[in-house]
Amino acid sequence: MGDAKQAYDALITEVKQIATLGSCANVLGWDEQTYMPKGGVKHRSEQLALLAGLTHERFTCTQIGDWLAEVEGSDLVSDRLSVEAVNVRELRQSYDRETKLPKDLVQELARMTTIGQQAWAEARSDSDFAAFQPHLEKILDLKKKEAAALGVGKTPYDALLDEYEPGETTDNLTNVFSALRNELVELVGAIVDSGNKPNMDIVKRLYPKDKQAEFGQMVASQIGFDFDCGRLDETAHPFCSGFGPGDTRLTTRYDEHYFPQALFGTMHEAGHGIYDQGLNADYYGTPMGNSVSLGIHESQSRMWENFVGRSNAFWTHFFPKAQTTFPDALGQVSQDDFYFAVNNVEASFIRVEADEVTYNLHILLRFEMEQALMNGGLNVADVPGVWNETFEKYFGITPPDDAHGCLQDIHWSFGGIGYFPTYTLGNLYAAQLFEQARDDVGDLDAQFAAGEFLPLKSWLNEKIHKPGQKYRASELVDVVTGKPLSHAPLIRHLKTKFGSLYGIG
Amino acid sequence: MGDAKQAYDALITEVKQIATLGSCANVLGWDEQTYMPKGGVKHRSEQLALLAGLTHERFTCTQIGDWLAEVEGSDLVSDRLSVEAVNVRELRQSYDRETKLPKDLVQELARMTTIGQQAWAEARSDSDFAAFQPHLEKILDLKKKEAAALGVGKTPYDALLDEYEPGETTDNLTNVFSALRNELVELVGAIVDSGNKPNMDIVKRLYPKDKQAEFGQMVASQIGFDFDCGRLDETAHPFCSGFGPGDTRLTTRYDEHYFPQALFGTMHEAGHGIYDQGLNADYYGTPMGNSVSLGIHESQSRMWENFVGRSNAFWTHFFPKAQTTFPDALGQVSQDDFYFAVNNVEASFIRVEADEVTYNLHILLRFEMEQALMNGGLNVADVPGVWNETFEKYFGITPPDDAHGCLQDIHWSFGGIGYFPTYTLGNLYAAQLFEQARDDVGDLDAQFAAGEFLPLKSWLNEKIHKPGQKYRASELVDVVTGKPLSHAPLIRHLKTKFGSLYGIG
Repeated sequence: MGDAKQAYDALITEVKQIATLGSCANVLGWDEQTYMPKGGVKHRSEQLALLAGLTHERFTCTQIGDWLAEVEGSDLVSDRLSVEAVNVRELRQSYDRETKLPKDLVQELARMTTIGQQAWAEARSDSDFAAFQPHLEKILDLKKKEAAALGVGKTPYDALLDEYEPGETTDNLTNVFSALRNELVELVGAIVDSGNKPNMDIVKRLYPKDKQAEFGQMVASQIGFDFDCGRLDETAHPFCSGFGPGDTRLTTRYDEHYFPQALFGTMHEAGHGIYDQGLNADYYGTPMGNSVSLGIHESQSRMWENFVGRSNAFWTHFFPKAQTTFPDALGQVSQDDFYFAVNNVEASFIRVEADEVTYNLHILLRFEMEQALMNGGLNVADVPGVWNETFEKYFGITPPDDAHGCLQDIHWSFGGIGYFPTYTLGNLYAAQLFEQARDDVGDLDAQFAAGEFLPLKSWLNEKIHKPGQKYRASELVDVVTGKPLSHAPLIRHLKTKFGSLYGIG
Repeated sequence: MGDAKQAYDALITEVKQIATLGSCANVLGWDEQTYMPKGGVKHRSEQLALLAGLTHERFTCTQIGDWLAEVEGSDLVSDRLSVEAVNVRELRQSYDRETKLPKDLVQELARMTTIGQQAWAEARSDSDFAAFQPHLEKILDLKKKEAAALGVGKTPYDALLDEYEPGETTDNLTNVFSALRNELVELVGAIVDSGNKPNMDIVKRLYPKDKQAEFGQMVASQIGFDFDCGRLDETAHPFCSGFGPGDTRLTTRYDEHYFPQALFGTMHEAGHGIYDQGLNADYYGTPMGNSVSLGIHESQSRMWENFVGRSNAFWTHFFPKAQTTFPDALGQVSQDDFYFAVNNVEASFIRVEADEVTYNLHILLRFEMEQALMNGGLNVADVPGVWNETFEKYFGITPPDDAHGCLQDIHWSFGGIGYFPTYTLGNLYAAQLFEQARDDVGDLDAQFAAGEFLPLKSWLNEKIHKPGQKYRASELVDVVTGKPLSHAPLIRHLKTKFGSLYGIG
């Protein structure tokens, strides 16, 4: 036991240092997206490759394996839910994973994805897929090497999925998603048949950028994001990055003639940020101080964005404030009309601006294409064509250009293949957790209408954030809600909300 | 020779990597000053301490010493001005220096100065020296340990000076500065006796911040700072930080009722930035791709700020543009009155806002106090009192509070003791180099009046920036101007310019 304790302490000290080193890369990555001049990209790629190599090297050092082996099986980890047991279980998983990846590959990925992100940003702004194609080809090639080195699951795509959502498989997702799709298609049909449509002009009036920024900050602050330990900036693609205890960065983007974009983007990222700020700082750098998975992370962002931000109760509190902030746009508008407009269900090109109902169809398209890219069934050069064909099939409309099609998302440029499915998982988790919160926290609608968001935030802090990686995603949902994951809560939520909005209940 | 070449190549590869790692800390340091929320300071100090420790550890590895020893004395370095010889000479110097510093001390300094800078910023904003005192005491204590470990020169202060201006000594500076002081005191006396004063109201009118930022960017760009490879932000204390090839960051600060502050601050930092951008990127991370010393760096910033920016010829080009940008403030003002106002000579509290004549007296005060702090003749607790007394003696006025006195500068909070004297050295170098540029480049005044700054910039690129550390500061000045450093050029410049302005020629 004495030796095991010593080994455990040494292990924790080292992994905390590695996490601190890794967090330097987060600062550099954030700067790259926010403020870096374009001339800086080459050197930035060298910096990030170096840091990626160093953290990989340190984490895959045989000493880590030795320490792990010394603790495993000892009394220190006999209670499987103790801090020590959880840390050792998850570190073992990461160690086994990382040791399979050669350092050269890790560094090359860091280098190529730094350059790839810049290339993507320019290609997207010019809607020029050809400019991005060689970068995506290189990145895809590296991701195939990564999947082969990992050798997890039945297919290369499984290996990548497992990185973002440990234990998840293509087969399981295919089942869950197809059950979901059937229900969604039926609901979309009913909505179209209803013939009802909100007046979208309301949200397309002039909303000055500085006022949007002010309003977004106010909302993010009130739902519980702490700006003494974070900030909000503007980027081409919104994201949230945690640098470590006390420093969590959000970004959003503004369209002066489309109000929902920046605000719901801000709330979405604030949801991620509230999770990050809710992690146990004492366990920083260890699994007990880390988030569970991307799917669980996304459940937090989607909950604040959709279940809170797009609810009628939320606007009972905030609509009068929005009217004061945007008197020209909203002075003569009713809350009901505004609420309907921010919940417009419609086939649209941009995933992050999609409504709650059609959103998951955007994910299904990417899920299918990623599998094809990874298994060789689709060449990078054919991505724009296949994207547009599939889009037409799913949504009945064709993107006017690649900026509104296959170039819209940053993910592939940073190597995030297998990442998209976690967004739909996040929607499913969010719905199931939110149903449970309604039971546990009391009348959430009444609270939101009174501007009280702390009860929900505290519940999430307690149930989801503070436990770190004590449970894997599926077990966590089971522990918190008493039920395994199901698509039923999401469908219930959508049918109730949109049934009422579109008069199809 | 084969072995020497191999050792040299391995050495260069390794020091380039170390430089890249060190440059990550520059990004984190810049972010700390510009955008970091206050909650992030503790973790940031851990990140920077870790990076400082890692770079120190790698650079002091005995392998570096072995490679150096293998190259030294070989044919590869027989020509003392070859790239190889210069790199080996300067790396040897740095290696011997760094190996004297224990890693614990290096890390503790990084940690304490990160926290110290935040504490300083708050203390300065509250004008509360007591809040900063314990931080300064800790930092001073660490700097004493650093000086003792280095053991360079006759006094602990010599050891610190040597870090910023290799080879410089307290004795030598005392001599140069006292010769300078006598001439300055005489000139200030003549200016006061002239009874002439500019109309300072001109520069104290309302200059909207966004217009100042726009004007400053335009000027910085036109004198040759490349914004594709850099940017300009706002901080409490202006600085320039080079992150590596292609990315150089400037900051400034704005006072809407004092025009000179932001513009000349911007030009000053742009001068540093132009040096950084002018370094040979092929030699990045090695002495041949580094700046010579802080004094030479400051010669570049002061040249663009004062010898260019505060010249009449410069305003012949830019004053009409300033009138267009600030029509309310400058529409009815003559260029002569404006030129006189931005060259007002007057005892003032803030160093960075001081005129060219009194500026060096601010440095002398700090030079004396730093020596006293280091040799134990002055306790930190007594700094405010002694500062104010000495200030009264030098300038005939007493700071109204510590924010305008001993808390005004960031330097001590980042451990930059021994840094200030390089500012006066910079003024001396600038004057001597500028005289030479007048001989070499042609009629600079005519060029400036026509908005042509590229000839001077190209001359500096060629003579000062591209050679990297080929020469030490004093040798560089001798090589470029054909004469050893002297205070005469600065005095000549000041007498000519201010003699004419104040009618005392």
